[in-house]
Amino acid sequence: MNIRKLEELLKKVKSGKITLDEAIAQLKSLPFEDLGFTRIDHHRSLRKGFPEVIWGEGKTSRQILSIMKQLKQKGQNILITRLEEKKARAIQKIFLKSQYYPKSKVLTYLTHPVKPEGKGTILVITAGTTDIPVAEEAVITAQFMGNCVETLYDVGVAGIHRLLYERERMEKAYVLIVAAGMEGALPSVVGGLVDRPVIAVPTSVGYGTSFGGITALLAMLNSCASGVAVVNIDNGFGAGYIASLINRM
Amino acid sequence: MNIRKLEELLKKVKSGKITLDEAIAQLKSLPFEDLGFTRIDHHRSLRKGFPEVIWGEGKTSRQILSIMKQLKQKGQNILITRLEEKKARAIQKIFLKSQYYPKSKVLTYLTHPVKPEGKGTILVITAGTTDIPVAEEAVITAQFMGNCVETLYDVGVAGIHRLLYERERMEKAYVLIVAAGMEGALPSVVGGLVDRPVIAVPTSVGYGTSFGGITALLAMLNSCASGVAVVNIDNGFGAGYIASLINRM
Amino acid sequence: MNIRKLEELLKKVKSGKITLDEAIAQLKSLPFEDLGFTRIDHHRSLRKGFPEVIWGEGKTSRQILSIMKQLKQKGQNILITRLEEKKARAIQKIFLKSQYYPKSKVLTYLTHPVKPEGKGTILVITAGTTDIPVAEEAVITAQFMGNCVETLYDVGVAGIHRLLYERERMEKAYVLIVAAGMEGALPSVVGGLVDRPVIAVPTSVGYGTSFGGITALLAMLNSCASGVAVVNIDNGFGAGYIASLINRM
Amino acid sequence: MNIRKLEELLKKVKSGKITLDEAIAQLKSLPFEDLGFTRIDHHRSLRKGFPEVIWGEGKTSRQILSIMKQLKQKGQNILITRLEEKKARAIQKIFLKSQYYPKSKVLTYLTHPVKPEGKGTILVITAGTTDIPVAEEAVITAQFMGNCVETLYDVGVAGIHRLLYERERMEKAYVLIVAAGMEGALPSVVGGLVDRPVIAVPTSVGYGTSFGGITALLAMLNSCASGVAVVNIDNGFGAGYIASLINRM
Amino acid sequence: MNIRKLEELLKKVKSGKITLDEAIAQLKSLPFEDLGFTRIDHHRSLRKGFPEVIWGEGKTSRQILSIMKQLKQKGQNILITRLEEKKARAIQKIFLKSQYYPKSKVLTYLTHPVKPEGKGTILVITAGTTDIPVAEEAVITAQFMGNCVETLYDVGVAGIHRLLYERERMEKAYVLIVAAGMEGALPSVVGGLVDRPVIAVPTSVGYGTSFGGITALLAMLNSCASGVAVVNIDNGFGAGYIASLINRM
Amino acid sequence: MNIRKLEELLKKVKSGKITLDEAIAQLKSLPFEDLGFTRIDHHRSLRKGFPEVIWGEGKTSRQILSIMKQLKQKGQNILITRLEEKKARAIQKIFLKSQYYPKSKVLTYLTHPVKPEGKGTILVITAGTTDIPVAEEAVITAQFMGNCVETLYDVGVAGIHRLLYERERMEKAYVLIVAAGMEGALPSVVGGLVDRPVIAVPTSVGYGTSFGGITALLAMLNSCASGVAVVNIDNGFGAGYIASLINRM
Amino acid sequence: MNIRKLEELLKKVKSGKITLDEAIAQLKSLPFEDLGFTRIDHHRSLRKGFPEVIWGEGKTSRQILSIMKQLKQKGQNILITRLEEKKARAIQKIFLKSQYYPKSKVLTYLTHPVKPEGKGTILVITAGTTDIPVAEEAVITAQFMGNCVETLYDVGVAGIHRLLYERERMEKAYVLIVAAGMEGALPSVVGGLVDRPVIAVPTSVGYGTSFGGITALLAMLNSCASGVAVVNIDNGFGAGYIASLINRM
Amino acid sequence: MNIRKLEELLKKVKSGKITLDEAIAQLKSLPFEDLGFTRIDHHRSLRKGFPEVIWGEGKTSRQILSIMKQLKQKGQNILITRLEEKKARAIQKIFLKSQYYPKSKVLTYLTHPVKPEGKGTILVITAGTTDIPVAEEAVITAQFMGNCVETLYDVGVAGIHRLLYERERMEKAYVLIVAAGMEGALPSVVGGLVDRPVIAVPTSVGYGTSFGGITALLAMLNSCASGVAVVNIDNGFGAGYIASLINRM
Repeated sequence: MNIRKLEELLKKVKSGKITLDEAIAQLKSLPFEDLGFTRIDHHRSLRKGFPEVIWGEGKTSRQILSIMKQLKQKGQNILITRLEEKKARAIQKIFLKSQYYPKSKVLTYLTHPVKPEGKGTILVITAGTTDIPVAEEAVITAQFMGNCVETLYDVGVAGIHRLLYERERMEKAYVLIVAAGMEGALPSVVGGLVDRPVIAVPTSVGYGTSFGGITALLAMLNSCASGVAVVNIDNGFGAGYIASLINRM
Repeated sequence: MNIRKLEELLKKVKSGKITLDEAIAQLKSLPFEDLGFTRIDHHRSLRKGFPEVIWGEGKTSRQILSIMKQLKQKGQNILITRLEEKKARAIQKIFLKSQYYPKSKVLTYLTHPVKPEGKGTILVITAGTTDIPVAEEAVITAQFMGNCVETLYDVGVAGIHRLLYERERMEKAYVLIVAAGMEGALPSVVGGLVDRPVIAVPTSVGYGTSFGGITALLAMLNSCASGVAVVNIDNGFGAGYIASLINRM
Repeated sequence: MNIRKLEELLKKVKSGKITLDEAIAQLKSLPFEDLGFTRIDHHRSLRKGFPEVIWGEGKTSRQILSIMKQLKQKGQNILITRLEEKKARAIQKIFLKSQYYPKSKVLTYLTHPVKPEGKGTILVITAGTTDIPVAEEAVITAQFMGNCVETLYDVGVAGIHRLLYERERMEKAYVLIVAAGMEGALPSVVGGLVDRPVIAVPTSVGYGTSFGGITALLAMLNSCASGVAVVNIDNGFGAGYIASLINRM
Repeated sequence: MNIRKLEELLKKVKSGKITLDEAIAQLKSLPFEDLGFTRIDHHRSLRKGFPEVIWGEGKTSRQILSIMKQLKQKGQNILITRLEEKKARAIQKIFLKSQYYPKSKVLTYLTHPVKPEGKGTILVITAGTTDIPVAEEAVITAQFMGNCVETLYDVGVAGIHRLLYERERMEKAYVLIVAAGMEGALPSVVGGLVDRPVIAVPTSVGYGTSFGGITALLAMLNSCASGVAVVNIDNGFGAGYIASLINRM
Repeated sequence: MNIRKLEELLKKVKSGKITLDEAIAQLKSLPFEDLGFTRIDHHRSLRKGFPEVIWGEGKTSRQILSIMKQLKQKGQNILITRLEEKKARAIQKIFLKSQYYPKSKVLTYLTHPVKPEGKGTILVITAGTTDIPVAEEAVITAQFMGNCVETLYDVGVAGIHRLLYERERMEKAYVLIVAAGMEGALPSVVGGLVDRPVIAVPTSVGYGTSFGGITALLAMLNSCASGVAVVNIDNGFGAGYIASLINRM
Repeated sequence: MNIRKLEELLKKVKSGKITLDEAIAQLKSLPFEDLGFTRIDHHRSLRKGFPEVIWGEGKTSRQILSIMKQLKQKGQNILITRLEEKKARAIQKIFLKSQYYPKSKVLTYLTHPVKPEGKGTILVITAGTTDIPVAEEAVITAQFMGNCVETLYDVGVAGIHRLLYERERMEKAYVLIVAAGMEGALPSVVGGLVDRPVIAVPTSVGYGTSFGGITALLAMLNSCASGVAVVNIDNGFGAGYIASLINRM
Repeated sequence: MNIRKLEELLKKVKSGKITLDEAIAQLKSLPFEDLGFTRIDHHRSLRKGFPEVIWGEGKTSRQILSIMKQLKQKGQNILITRLEEKKARAIQKIFLKSQYYPKSKVLTYLTHPVKPEGKGTILVITAGTTDIPVAEEAVITAQFMGNCVETLYDVGVAGIHRLLYERERMEKAYVLIVAAGMEGALPSVVGGLVDRPVIAVPTSVGYGTSFGGITALLAMLNSCASGVAVVNIDNGFGAGYIASLINRM
Repeated sequence: MNIRKLEELLKKVKSGKITLDEAIAQLKSLPFEDLGFTRIDHHRSLRKGFPEVIWGEGKTSRQILSIMKQLKQKGQNILITRLEEKKARAIQKIFLKSQYYPKSKVLTYLTHPVKPEGKGTILVITAGTTDIPVAEEAVITAQFMGNCVETLYDVGVAGIHRLLYERERMEKAYVLIVAAGMEGALPSVVGGLVDRPVIAVPTSVGYGTSFGGITALLAMLNSCASGVAVVNIDNGFGAGYIASLINRM
């Protein structure tokens, strides 16, 4: 049923050709997709304050540019993840003010300043320096979504004092993102020190039986500390996103 | 928005308090779930001619009986899969005419005779005799859905002549279901002999590296014969179901 | 026993040198392969209307060209899958009218127009835009086999309204092919909306624990919707093939 | 160094036997554990408002009773997870007012009424009825931690309308916990409908390639919806715990 | 085409109603299965001297007895593998002279004495005493197939001298079967000491990361000694069978 | 060549029937196993001071008793691992002074007092109380081998202060054994605090993705702390054994 | 003990300085390695008629050339496996008469003609044309070891008639090597048709869930045909080697 | 609390402004991190005699140079592992006297001569020549930490006499490191021959089911020889490190 059919139905109601009950019955059986749900979707976008993130992998720079132009016209800020440097450079020639972070392969473009949304600070922690690119993806995402973000890098569990030394900063944070590769033990230790939600991000750092991050992932899922939830391997974006949702509550 | 709100809206249309355009706009933004989609679901059930299959695992016989009574009232035929013998016996005390197949752990109850739906014959083949319980689940499902079903058991590839001997029956079938454990090679051979869709069902028959059916599953997914698609390990029901959908086309 | 031996045997029958019973006994023990099964195979090819698909991987362009020439002489249409662009370019220099699809690595060559074979429409659906190359392989295969094919791309479950909006098109299709990577949830949702067979194609789209398509594959095998069968990861060809077999029934 | 050594040191400071600088140097090198960190730990417990959860697996009922008595003396509420029915019955003979939930194998004992802590509602959703025991563990945990909890069961993706019908309730929730087995697709769909954090709990419901919940876990980790984080298979407690931390922010 | 049709065809040849060429053409297109391949199969059985082995798993004692009676009538010796003790006892009540080996779950019944078939000795070696049940299955199978078998048990690689002490016996054997669990290293060492084929049988002996024999299997497949081939985990029967085939060459 | 042949050879040397060079040549080609290596093995046993450990799994109590009697006659102390309680009880009826540890399934029998062998203390640490049975196996083994053993239980990383509080004891130990299940993070933290070898023992404690200890194992293999080596899952014996070897250096 | 010590000992025997018993006792305790076991090894090499195969992977062409020169001096024929083309070209500049097979990455160099060793024919079969490089490695190895080898390529199970057509050749072979990728079903079918040992070689041919040959390997290990043993993935050399050992019996 | 606060506190103690008890209470609650634990860490470094190893992977040569300069200033010797040749060359331009080992990708720089620390010899053994790069990493690490290291290469189990020939050297060593790929059997054999700790290093040498070292790892974890502990795949550094810790005891 399309708009015209709906119009006809309402005309019949108005003219009394069908009773209210008959009209209700017909409306109930309406295929909802004909009611213009794109608008509802539009509402959802506005409500979330975070319209569309573009997943750069497997898209050509031409495809990405086309999407970016549409989003720019709607006045939206743009975040692109997993974007290879070569494509980023092509995009930056058109979107001159866009910013590209080569380590974490993220590009941002602001049509308007980011509006502060977060209540507290999101603290992003890494076990080693090699985990930083993933952490950076989380940092950029959370900042892009209007959060105040702090970082605490290279405080892995093999030198536990480095971590304990920063206990106060950990306790002040509202949400903590912890990225670690290898044995992925850091979220367990952090989770035991704070009473805030910890989002654990396994990274693909390591070799041999680190299995590209699977060991870290498994360790995090089995954390003996409560209050830890996990995202996909190297998914800094996902961690930054859910941390932002939590921080605006 | 509930029914009352809808009623009010239509009353306003009737009385001219709002224009047609205003009414359409309001209807478009209706949360569709308030329109009573269960009815649409009802339509879907009728259309499929196969309303509800009950997954017996993890349900108590009391829970199952309660669902059965509702379905019986609606005049529907009932199929329960993965039902332990003990529960089945409890159910049969209430539903006296229900039929239980202990090998394949399926129970059926007919409120009305099954209506023929299939165009051709569905042929269910097994590699060994130990695969028969899974095959039987497929057979019962397909018969329950109105199909003519034939079987061809114990024709595994280690004695290829047994299979070739039955080539004519294979060529006559409209859809073929092939259940095999161990190396799961049979669907490939069958798929090379016929020009009909082959639904492959890996079974958990075997030991050691058969890994409870994983080897058979992987072999079937890698079939060098075209025209083969696969369902979950031991999922005779799923094979019978999709074969029935195909056979009524 | 070759033809000459068969001839001699029949001569003996004719001349009465052996009795009928003796001849029958000898014929029964004939190695069947000497009876010229290539002809039977020939019949099979014609019957299927889809003689030979060339698997391009691991073959040189010289080898492929040699096969193509033979097939062309027999007047057959040719489909080559998993063909690297470099080899394709070499082939196109000889087979000028051949068509190459670089995204899905498929090459087709028509010696005669494709004959319509399908009864209804095959609808090919993808969860994301990155799944399109696999979907395209299915589309080309199904068209090559004489089917009317429609597509519905980028309707993944995270924005369920996009999918629901197209419900009518889904319900009209005879067979549905659903390609998805990542969590591979789309076939379950589609399978719950239609009463037609759904062929699910896991794609290798994703990262980390997507494990090159294994996660999507597993999800599809465990679909809680009935009526779903699965092919190998990225096997668009296989999906297109079995969908074609189903659609001509 | 124990308290007495610390006392002596301070006495020496007081009496001038060592300079301030010497004292500082000695204090700096103090093994911090001698400073009585158990008290700090005590503070942490109070601050979290959720002192000790007892993991029942692998502990005898005697061991558990001993721990419970200590906790009761400190006036704390007690939550025991993964407690077999037999042990629970033994415990209930001593702690008469304790409450045992056999489906989810959880026991609670309240020394004082639970204090409301949560800001909004936590909504616990399941795909099927077989996922309810895991969901119930989350419900009890979250209620025990002072949250208002609602439930929405059996709304799996194969009948997507059942879920969409409850969209309003989903949108009202502050945090959502989604438990699903088999293909684990539900969190992706829910995550696409709401703008709140979704905690996904894979359950071990399924057979064959569900691999005791691994398939659901992998699907959830690969969710194409942002805003989803995951806990261990069947870890209803963990989901309830982190949801509670989020809900009190 | 059945025998009657064949008879008619030959009659036509005899009577000159069809030419030889026509008859040949018709015979070529005969579905070979109509020619009575069971007889060919029968030939194959006789030729192999090892007609049917019954896989006991998943068959009832009634089913097994029925097969045994048929085989006994044909005067064949019978070997049943993977037969639970309970079923064996039931069978032994009917087949009084049958012999059951509870450790390896094998039952044999001789209608006639085993005919010697092997050229040399088959030596069955185990790493530990816990591997003996699997080895015994190989021993019984090889003896049943007419071979002279010797055994060498508990000579694992952690005490390499035990093995080296028996070097002469190893060098005298024609075929060697080596069963080992845990790290499965023994076939590599044996394979380096002899110039005869080594059939490696991984056993499910071990715990933790022995993964029910997978570790031993993988080690054997990666043997740095040439001349080693592998059968399935715990497949003593398979090892005894192929060793017998080799030993009769 | 057996002893008699050797005797003859030496007689020929003595009598001058063969030259020294000839004798040397013949001796060189002697199969070494004829030289009586069991004696050498005997030496090895004495030298190790730890003759034979009996792996109880898969052996009957009768078999074990037979081995024990032989070892007792040689005056050796006996350690049996993985011994089910039922078998242990049977053994204790004969070996009255034997001691059985039901939690860790170890039985010891001393024919003479254990001789102190270790230089320092071996400290056995566990993450949780559920890891204690595995730890106890290590403790008994190390004590049986003549070591002074201390324990430190339930100091998992989720409450890092509990561990740090005991730092002095950790630093005093010569070798540390660390048993942990779930995420297996404890060895990394301990390894970062001490400068002594750490033997990590993954335990099968956990559920879901702990995969019976695989997660803990992987985490330990990927420890970011140097100085950590790993044994098989639940292999307390192996950890105690190698720790003993280290401690006597 | 070295040669000089042995000489002294014998001198003492000769001169009567020690008794025969004393000498025997001393000889028994000789570390056997001092007896010059390289010679025994030498014997072993000669006996096997197949001295050293060089594994080319991970060796520089310089290293390989050095080994080849030594082997050439000893008059041995040389086989090098897994040799990259670049290294082969460097070697062929020095060993002009060496032969390189680029598809299977094997190089052979003959210092003397290969001596026939095999009793019958080894038949090497492949499922597809892409499996030929692996098969070729087996062919060259077996020929190099003095066997008569025949080949039968591209007879995969999806066109079973191609295989059956060649049944006579299969039945004539003494040993059969069967290489297959994808679902690896061919050895099962071949094993059911012949009464000779079948060496199955899984190849890494396939994509997606073929997992680089694991699926084929698993299928072969689970062959329902008796008489099949398996070597490592792509291990054509190993198959050729053990087939040669079998064929010379 | 920083140093000034501590100073003030002690001043108050001295001046009697607060009682000893009050001071103790305040000190106990001090955040330990403010006590200057970096110094404690410093102590730990000195004590270990092995301050910082730099993991080269994922760091730029600029980052590495910056760390090296700091360490050089502190007068420390430097070891860098997993350093690509390109980065090494850049570093060697600045640190002229640094030494790079391209096979094992290790770079060392000595600011002062290595001080002997080890009590006995560490013997590093490999199964094949291809395992040498990993072994070399262990050798360099152990030498860098002040140990006397010997090597024994290419003594794999397929030619067991090669290993036995060197038994004396094995027995003399204090600690043994055994590196092996493929089936990883060597540590078991070595562990059975010596009474010293064996550190097993699985290497990624092999193909097919060697799975990049997983098979060797699993075999080593399941060693039937006691006294074997395992490190990560290809982790020569880790093996050398723990062997050094053991050798200095």
